[in-house]
Amino acid sequence: MKKTKENSSKLKIIPLGGLEQIGMNITAFEYEDSIIVVDCGLSFPEDDMLGIDLVIPDITYLKDNIDKVKGFFITHGHEDHIGAIPYVIKEINVPIYATKLTIGIIEHKLKEHELLSKVKRKVVKYGQHINLGKFRVEFIKTNHSIQDAAALAIHSPAGTVVHTGDFKVDYTPVFGDAIDLARFGELGKKGVLALMCDSTNAERPGSTMSEKTVGAALETIFAENKERRIIVATFASNVDRVQQIINIAYNYGRKVCVEGRSMVNIISTATELGYLNIPDKTLVEIDEIKNYPDEKTVIITTGSQGESMAALSRMAAGIHKKITIKPNDVIVLSSHPIPGNEKNVSKIINELSMKGADVIFQDVHVSGHACQEDIKLLYSLVRPKYSVPVHGEYRHLKAQANIANSLGIEKENIFILSSGDVLELDEESAAVTGKVPTGAVYVDGLGVGDVGNIVLRDRQHLAEEGIIIVVLTMETGSGQIVAGPDIVSRGFVYVRGSEDLMEEANNVLSDTVIKIEDSNITDWGKIKTMIKDDLGDFVWKETKRKPMIIPIIMEI
Amino acid sequence: MKKTKENSSKLKIIPLGGLEQIGMNITAFEYEDSIIVVDCGLSFPEDDMLGIDLVIPDITYLKDNIDKVKGFFITHGHEDHIGAIPYVIKEINVPIYATKLTIGIIEHKLKEHELLSKVKRKVVKYGQHINLGKFRVEFIKTNHSIQDAAALAIHSPAGTVVHTGDFKVDYTPVFGDAIDLARFGELGKKGVLALMCDSTNAERPGSTMSEKTVGAALETIFAENKERRIIVATFASNVDRVQQIINIAYNYGRKVCVEGRSMVNIISTATELGYLNIPDKTLVEIDEIKNYPDEKTVIITTGSQGESMAALSRMAAGIHKKITIKPNDVIVLSSHPIPGNEKNVSKIINELSMKGADVIFQDVHVSGHACQEDIKLLYSLVRPKYSVPVHGEYRHLKAQANIANSLGIEKENIFILSSGDVLELDEESAAVTGKVPTGAVYVDGLGVGDVGNIVLRDRQHLAEEGIIIVVLTMETGSGQIVAGPDIVSRGFVYVRGSEDLMEEANNVLSDTVIKIEDSNITDWGKIKTMIKDDLGDFVWKETKRKPMIIPIIMEI
Repeated sequence: MKKTKENSSKLKIIPLGGLEQIGMNITAFEYEDSIIVVDCGLSFPEDDMLGIDLVIPDITYLKDNIDKVKGFFITHGHEDHIGAIPYVIKEINVPIYATKLTIGIIEHKLKEHELLSKVKRKVVKYGQHINLGKFRVEFIKTNHSIQDAAALAIHSPAGTVVHTGDFKVDYTPVFGDAIDLARFGELGKKGVLALMCDSTNAERPGSTMSEKTVGAALETIFAENKERRIIVATFASNVDRVQQIINIAYNYGRKVCVEGRSMVNIISTATELGYLNIPDKTLVEIDEIKNYPDEKTVIITTGSQGESMAALSRMAAGIHKKITIKPNDVIVLSSHPIPGNEKNVSKIINELSMKGADVIFQDVHVSGHACQEDIKLLYSLVRPKYSVPVHGEYRHLKAQANIANSLGIEKENIFILSSGDVLELDEESAAVTGKVPTGAVYVDGLGVGDVGNIVLRDRQHLAEEGIIIVVLTMETGSGQIVAGPDIVSRGFVYVRGSEDLMEEANNVLSDTVIKIEDSNITDWGKIKTMIKDDLGDFVWKETKRKPMIIPIIMEI
Repeated sequence: MKKTKENSSKLKIIPLGGLEQIGMNITAFEYEDSIIVVDCGLSFPEDDMLGIDLVIPDITYLKDNIDKVKGFFITHGHEDHIGAIPYVIKEINVPIYATKLTIGIIEHKLKEHELLSKVKRKVVKYGQHINLGKFRVEFIKTNHSIQDAAALAIHSPAGTVVHTGDFKVDYTPVFGDAIDLARFGELGKKGVLALMCDSTNAERPGSTMSEKTVGAALETIFAENKERRIIVATFASNVDRVQQIINIAYNYGRKVCVEGRSMVNIISTATELGYLNIPDKTLVEIDEIKNYPDEKTVIITTGSQGESMAALSRMAAGIHKKITIKPNDVIVLSSHPIPGNEKNVSKIINELSMKGADVIFQDVHVSGHACQEDIKLLYSLVRPKYSVPVHGEYRHLKAQANIANSLGIEKENIFILSSGDVLELDEESAAVTGKVPTGAVYVDGLGVGDVGNIVLRDRQHLAEEGIIIVVLTMETGSGQIVAGPDIVSRGFVYVRGSEDLMEEANNVLSDTVIKIEDSNITDWGKIKTMIKDDLGDFVWKETKRKPMIIPIIMEI
């Protein structure tokens, strides 16, 4: 029975990560009794998240509506779109839908978490439609810096939403087809309610270059350095980049060695699934590479972002067990520093240069994200009623909002959503009507969500100022101090100039103890406060520092 | 008596900061019994220098040769060239030579450290020569992102060294003259032993644009936003930039308000010394600005690097006491993020955009450093025998070395010096002949040099893992444990899921105590090790974390 306008429901779009948790791409689409979730990413800790390994989304909303949740639809296999799956799937165990390579990468991840047998996966082809609850979800071919990326057309009774995922327009991709622009156009002609489009490069004018242009640049480097070993660092997941390097190496008669765990993993998955074609006898193990002259080898490695434990960083620091950088080496950083990594990348460029190698890092990379003209193209094909920019910081979402507005979409039809915003929409109207709980859950070691802001604040304090521990033993009943106060410190200085600070601090505490005893104070809280105050004042006066002070009273 | 070749000495160039301590620009020039020092900068702490405020150079070499040291020659007034003066001058109290504005900025700094009356300063004019020991030092006009920058021609019996300081070539500077290219040419014709040239932009092709081009870009922004308040953030020390903003504001009939302590300071110094000309009644106090309509005001502020405590960051975060960002504001970030600041800058762009303001950050800044073509120009004028690239990371020094080589200087005549390298040179030859002690001295609060690597390592450990303190009281003689073990933790979690970790840890320690008592162990060292091991194993097994564990034993 087709619903009449009067009693028809609206579609809800609810980002559970995103703007306030960049990287944690996870969006719920809800229509009546059905919820589907697009992507399930994690983010890496900011500098002030001390000791945190990963950050995953708070999925309280999904847990509260677990009966509605039908499945996860994953646009591509990058960490910021799949990384939280092993954590989230334990609580929301519904099927995962994605293209072949994406499923392959997810399966590798599930295996590591010993979850493979517990989770349903379904490989979807481009053009295929999945019916799930009130939704029908269609996978559309796009291009990106990883293969098998998909946009999603999410058809609901309230209308169709097109979600691009991360994408670029590459008319000449290295592998597979170009983005299916025709299908976007067809959808546009039929009528699209909302476009959720990648904003990452929305501040950049022009169009994003084809991945093939990197191949041409690399080819030139190979042609100009026939007598030298070449080491190329790039993102492990950029299989097309790896394919191009392998092809060029093969043409120049070089053996290829792959280094770095994530690179080895992804190459094995991609090869197995047919996304990477390596000519016979081209690949050699790292232990065999010494059997070939330098100028007949290429090393493809991780670490192009200067990650401290990655293979290239170990080579740069001279602590790689198998590969030693030589003055004649040509090292290509085929990547661009992700914001925040600039200094680390600069560090390895310096270290590699100091070892005499030539480091090439300009014009050997293209972005995987659409620039302004590409975004305009997509809007012009899809012609959505509403614009909901996704992927990127606020500045990027706003830049896309400006583009959408310049293309004729009214400002009131453009929505920059915060995490947890509930956008209700249909052909009649759209508005943010509510907010659901969202947030960042910290993963530290085995602990998921046990490290909160108090622990982080303590860590920050400890990190900046160190700690002074004051222990004393008190006799029960009499309240007499029978041992201590003893002082132990860490991350704090003992000696300044010729003065022994801790000895002086002891004198200060002796005075405090006399005060305590003279005034017959036996209340532990009061005693602790007095110790903290007196010692804190002394240390501040002497050093202008405020270490954490922890008084511990023992009772016998 | 002119020395014959046989008994002539060589000139020594010894960087005491620089490559291994980027930012700490300080170089000793030594000839027989004379040492002069060029610049005396500080650097700001890297991310892993937890709690450190500043980093200054280790000047052991100067202290060991204090009788030789004749004076400091300062090229310009930026922190990385003057910042360590108040610390170093306390130990090496010799006169400071610099141009007028530079001395003005140094005097402000000395005042803050209550050192003004104790230090001799001498204002030097361009073209003036200072005779000091075996040296004659000449100040040459250059351009930079701060006024009154100078290159130095350091004349010694072994030959002349030209040190550019930080410089750019600006044919149309906002204030004062263009760089004195003719004098560089004259020196070149007479013969220059070595050129020490700014490498900061040696990776960038082309020429650096004139500061005046920024004025033109700002003018356009003012012309296009006549109905809106304009806020411009830039570097406090870029007085020419400030002058241009004030001139444009005046032409558009706007009042100017200056915000941010360092901005107010430098404007007062520059105005006082005649380097900044502010039309009457243009400047208004921050409390008066509300008396003018928004479109008739401009706010010039610090914080263009996203520094968390600077004025613009406080405005962006909505915690500035006097200025509230409004949706109609136009905010110009007239600067480029210094490497490492990208994320902080992005953060304020996001925050300001969220408040509805338009943020302009593209094409409203030019660099203060010479690009490749400018560097080539300087080499072609000075025509040095030796090249000693300065200022920048290794990658930048190497880029300049490549430029020098491309201009015909042989590789063996190009020296990339590490901190402490002793380069001995004269017309006959040049070589690194030794190494003097150098290093980074950490300033933390009032402490200079008291925080070392052990303290920093402890802070890092505390920051990432937190701390668990175990206290127990033991009876002297019997060795019986009469109180505890008690556990206190900070920066570590207590509860995971439903388990009380600390309670379980207590059980583990009870077993340890039984072990200790059963085996009659009374050696404190052994007891502490047992506690650390048992508790550490338990915590690792349960959480995969390694907090710092500190056992404290009290004796009664």
